[in-house]
Amino acid sequence: MAQDLGDIEKLSVEGGEDIVTPWDVSAEEVTGIDYAKLIVKFGSVPIDHQLISRIEKVTGKPTHYFLKRGIFFSHREMERILDLYEQKKPFYLYTGRGPSSEAMHMGHLVPFLFTKWLQETFNVPLVIQVTDDEKFLWKDIPIDRMKQIAFENVKDIIALGFDMEKTFIFCNFNYMGQCPEFYQLIVQIEKHVTFNQAKAIFGFTDSDSIGKISFPAIQAAPSFSSAFPHIFSGRSDLPCLIPCAIDQDPYFRMTRDVAPKLKLPKPALLHSIFFPALQGATSKMSASDENSSIFLTDSQDSIKTKVMKYAFSGGQPTIDQHKKLGGNCDIDVSYQYLKFFLEDDHKLEQLRKDYTSGTLSTNELKLELVAVLQKLVREIQENRKLVTDDMARQFMVPRKLKFQY
Amino acid sequence: MAQDLGDIEKLSVEGGEDIVTPWDVSAEEVTGIDYAKLIVKFGSVPIDHQLISRIEKVTGKPTHYFLKRGIFFSHREMERILDLYEQKKPFYLYTGRGPSSEAMHMGHLVPFLFTKWLQETFNVPLVIQVTDDEKFLWKDIPIDRMKQIAFENVKDIIALGFDMEKTFIFCNFNYMGQCPEFYQLIVQIEKHVTFNQAKAIFGFTDSDSIGKISFPAIQAAPSFSSAFPHIFSGRSDLPCLIPCAIDQDPYFRMTRDVAPKLKLPKPALLHSIFFPALQGATSKMSASDENSSIFLTDSQDSIKTKVMKYAFSGGQPTIDQHKKLGGNCDIDVSYQYLKFFLEDDHKLEQLRKDYTSGTLSTNELKLELVAVLQKLVREIQENRKLVTDDMARQFMVPRKLKFQY
Repeated sequence: MAQDLGDIEKLSVEGGEDIVTPWDVSAEEVTGIDYAKLIVKFGSVPIDHQLISRIEKVTGKPTHYFLKRGIFFSHREMERILDLYEQKKPFYLYTGRGPSSEAMHMGHLVPFLFTKWLQETFNVPLVIQVTDDEKFLWKDIPIDRMKQIAFENVKDIIALGFDMEKTFIFCNFNYMGQCPEFYQLIVQIEKHVTFNQAKAIFGFTDSDSIGKISFPAIQAAPSFSSAFPHIFSGRSDLPCLIPCAIDQDPYFRMTRDVAPKLKLPKPALLHSIFFPALQGATSKMSASDENSSIFLTDSQDSIKTKVMKYAFSGGQPTIDQHKKLGGNCDIDVSYQYLKFFLEDDHKLEQLRKDYTSGTLSTNELKLELVAVLQKLVREIQENRKLVTDDMARQFMVPRKLKFQY
Repeated sequence: MAQDLGDIEKLSVEGGEDIVTPWDVSAEEVTGIDYAKLIVKFGSVPIDHQLISRIEKVTGKPTHYFLKRGIFFSHREMERILDLYEQKKPFYLYTGRGPSSEAMHMGHLVPFLFTKWLQETFNVPLVIQVTDDEKFLWKDIPIDRMKQIAFENVKDIIALGFDMEKTFIFCNFNYMGQCPEFYQLIVQIEKHVTFNQAKAIFGFTDSDSIGKISFPAIQAAPSFSSAFPHIFSGRSDLPCLIPCAIDQDPYFRMTRDVAPKLKLPKPALLHSIFFPALQGATSKMSASDENSSIFLTDSQDSIKTKVMKYAFSGGQPTIDQHKKLGGNCDIDVSYQYLKFFLEDDHKLEQLRKDYTSGTLSTNELKLELVAVLQKLVREIQENRKLVTDDMARQFMVPRKLKFQY
């Protein structure tokens, strides 16, 4: 069971010396964030072999390699969701995207790829919130441009292969004006969070805008099924499972604290580690620095150039030294990226061994990554070409999905 | 011209020793709030004879007695509105109601009666915001009950005789979910107000809910015509005139400060004094204390009983003393109420003279008031019987009004 924190005012926003908030992630060590410390600080529970085995057992399918490789490493009440699934009781998935730039990068894919696997494995409805309002509040982008960016992001998400009959995608700037129940839920959440609490959880200051301060209620609301009367026939009691990067956990700690006050079920969570920047794991990638990651819009050549030029190497300065001493996979960004996107466990293990022993050079390892990324990005780009504006608008129509309640 | 306050952080919420915020009004003196001081503090402009004459001149009609008697006593940029009217350029009216209880009292009528006169005189669209969300955030009332109360309030407002073809009434809990442009405008306002500013204007503390803290943007938004694309064909440049009680001014000081940042016109304002409680002018009436005022639901007998029993008297303790010394109209609640609701200027002046000289007793003065209130309440109650749920719903449909833009 997740360790709940009764008094949300006591929560701090920092994990040890690492800083992890929805807007700021920075690690002290070159190996990145200390996730073990973060789990203790946030009060979540590590995903262990026992939980992974149980997921395999109840679904009768092999688990996603994101779980086995510790990419999704922490959770809150995943057992409760598995109990429901065993009892054939309904639940739903909720994930989201802050549309910070028109092009999504590889790190943005992680929660979506995993969410897609969860949806296919458990066969449940999925709601995807695109927080155009949040990005408008945090960034210096005109509102109409922000709405365009959000729309392009919706098409990127669709290109990952979500099933329109089971998936509702919504941009806040529009959905708020389409569903009175959504706003009514948000105000109920807002009523139960003080500025003191928001300050403690998110690190707001008195100089932050009142929009930023009240935004957390908007990201919290889709955790409750009453936010989607068209999908859940007005039911408010359907539990929710949220796959997300760990930096989004503050929103849902707050949500879980508010839930009993509204007599609504607490959302369960699955947390992923961060996808490192090409330059190394000391920081999260920035969508505004185009050399910090591979983007879904990058050409095949550009993927190769970026990896060869920018991917931080855990290898030795010279080939001779590398052959003698071997590379360090823990800090090598190419290896880290392969852990995220090379599905073949055996091949990954072989690369790890060869790189560590020094028989595989940094250059060779990078070329392996280039091939994997080129294939993945090419496939998504091909799908993306088939996604029309009309299709995106259809995904965003508030409507019944292929589930009965 | 209104005296603008560039730095909204510097504004205080208190007028001298009187306290005037949207949620708290209390006066030190038995004569009530010191409005002259309040004007200086708030930075608004007194309504003088010159302005009243100009209103009569440009409209070609006698002004409402609320203006002549100082019931509407202060303004911001009313001249600009008169300039527009002279140039035959469009503007619109915006007023509102916080639905704190199912029954409206006489004090609640004041802005509506005056707004109705303004609309008839200037022939412009009127939008009326019912802040069910605000009252839900501030009071311990379940959301569904709050929505019912708001709906009953809408029917009370309609009973005052507004023209459906020129008037749009909306409850926030519904309208937010009907009009994406409304939400988009609210977020733009929220972006330009910090917690520091909201604290300075409204007296919020760190223990207030994030809902309360962000609410001012919701009351601000209807000041801009882009909040009503169905009425104004998407135009955002139409100026707004807001008649309201002076305690609502903090919202619109904030709005006027934000307007230039959004490149939108500042709303103009007309401010009324407070309607005193039956027990005297030291406090605003409370809708939750049913003996503190006359309600639109009171029976003819109840009106008489309340006035005779509770109306604070400015007369002398004995009839003999009263005949000798006379009454004090400045503190006599019956006289104050007559100033609000007895239209006949000559009769009012006669009553004032007779009461001041002592030839009219408190009892006689109260009976004059009883007759005026009984007639007014009876007429509204008769209208109210004709207001159906359907009619209320029609007033609340987002739609084009009888004006072209």
